[in-house]
Amino acid sequence: MPSAPAFKTSPTQGLLAGPDVDLASIRPRSTPGFSGGKKKGKAKLAEGNAQLSDLQEKLFAESRFGSEISLLVVLQAMDTAGKGGIVRHVVGAVDPQGVKHYAFKAPTRAEKRHDFLWRVRKQLPGPGIIGVFDRSHYEDVLIQRVRGMAEPATIEERYGIIRDFEAGLTESGTRIIKVMLHISPEEQKERLTERLKRKDKHWKYNTGDLDERQLWDEYQVAYQIAIERTATPDAPWYVVPADRKWYARIAVQQLIIDALQDMQLSWPRADFDVAAEKARLANS
Amino acid sequence: MPSAPAFKTSPTQGLLAGPDVDLASIRPRSTPGFSGGKKKGKAKLAEGNAQLSDLQEKLFAESRFGSEISLLVVLQAMDTAGKGGIVRHVVGAVDPQGVKHYAFKAPTRAEKRHDFLWRVRKQLPGPGIIGVFDRSHYEDVLIQRVRGMAEPATIEERYGIIRDFEAGLTESGTRIIKVMLHISPEEQKERLTERLKRKDKHWKYNTGDLDERQLWDEYQVAYQIAIERTATPDAPWYVVPADRKWYARIAVQQLIIDALQDMQLSWPRADFDVAAEKARLANS
Repeated sequence: MPSAPAFKTSPTQGLLAGPDVDLASIRPRSTPGFSGGKKKGKAKLAEGNAQLSDLQEKLFAESRFGSEISLLVVLQAMDTAGKGGIVRHVVGAVDPQGVKHYAFKAPTRAEKRHDFLWRVRKQLPGPGIIGVFDRSHYEDVLIQRVRGMAEPATIEERYGIIRDFEAGLTESGTRIIKVMLHISPEEQKERLTERLKRKDKHWKYNTGDLDERQLWDEYQVAYQIAIERTATPDAPWYVVPADRKWYARIAVQQLIIDALQDMQLSWPRADFDVAAEKARLANS
Repeated sequence: MPSAPAFKTSPTQGLLAGPDVDLASIRPRSTPGFSGGKKKGKAKLAEGNAQLSDLQEKLFAESRFGSEISLLVVLQAMDTAGKGGIVRHVVGAVDPQGVKHYAFKAPTRAEKRHDFLWRVRKQLPGPGIIGVFDRSHYEDVLIQRVRGMAEPATIEERYGIIRDFEAGLTESGTRIIKVMLHISPEEQKERLTERLKRKDKHWKYNTGDLDERQLWDEYQVAYQIAIERTATPDAPWYVVPADRKWYARIAVQQLIIDALQDMQLSWPRADFDVAAEKARLANS
């Protein structure tokens, strides 16, 4: 089923960020691998959503017949970069039954009493489920690094702990995709301005966002290091240019579609005698 | 914002099932309150989804500013009645961030060690969230009654426990809507036949469904009693004719829309100095 507007190079190749990533060289307004503009992007989104919905149903169906596989999408970004829009417009196309979405906030007092992965483990997707982390354990090496909320040695340790954690997840059947939505400070300024202008957007505005904004460069460094240290073949990072919302959405959508297609999902074969059931039903 | 195709009588009035309900008199193929057919129904669904999405965002926004209210939709039905379709096509229109969906299965051994509401309490929606129960604590007075899985006296007790439980929820800010999707045995037969015919539907077929089907009349009695005993003004039951999928979807959608509209949601007022933030942002 070839789609009308398509990626020339899939984001799975084109946006892959390995240990040698150079964040500063990636242009937030670019649209790698896609030649159309906003209009074609929207058509692609609609078409991809149908594809995604189909693949998700197979993933879910297989789990009802004993498959243990699942998918985990980690979304990380500066404020206003569009995590929410991805959740609404891409993840939202999928049957709610097959999605586990969780937004990590600043850790509570109870959460702080445990190791930093404790709360993360509780939100992992079960078999057949697409898990979506809006922020994640990466906050523990991003804001915590930038803000000095943990000892440098502790932060250093965490990269390895995260790699091991993710390797374990992969081994137990959870495919992982890690996405950094990459926006420019100029674009963020516009989006924050919009939130302040519209009364129906005030609720999305957080005065703390401006404090983080002052630390823009420090965050870029923290992201750069996090990706360098935790990009592995099994739990890859993708840097998605996000100044154009429509592009970020179709790019993440394609990453999810590619991952699911790579799982070679199929409709489970009946584990019952179809003919016998037909006869039973006819007589009921 | 008047919609083109609309209910003459809203399901909130028309489908309300009080303690005097007579389930047997409600025709599963009927489409109470709606004069159009399938085509108009689909238009209504699309339009209602936009409305619903808007209302949900306000509910969610208010919770960010201290509101504690939430909505809980309980879905109960015979197999194939369309719970899944409601979740996919109605609930699916809402931002996944604002939805907590949970499908209750047969209780696990661990769950059985607790009172029957224990596992239910853990799945309640938090502030600002629309909770959707696909099956619920009502299984404990439906299948458990029909199958004699608990002592009659225990079952009897449960109606009162449920009423108290739901009254407590309402008091703490959770609005409750209880829906029984009402299909006919003939329609169920067709839908099961379809599942057996199509290889991509086999995974939805459960040989146990036919066993429950043999107990159709007993289930109707159990539903009738459950509604009689637990229909309260604060936690109302609605019996939704469900032989026509399109109708059941717009009816449940309208029930949710009406409940949210009745909450008189509005965009929260900024709890910060908008002008000061604008100035700070401009200088950042």
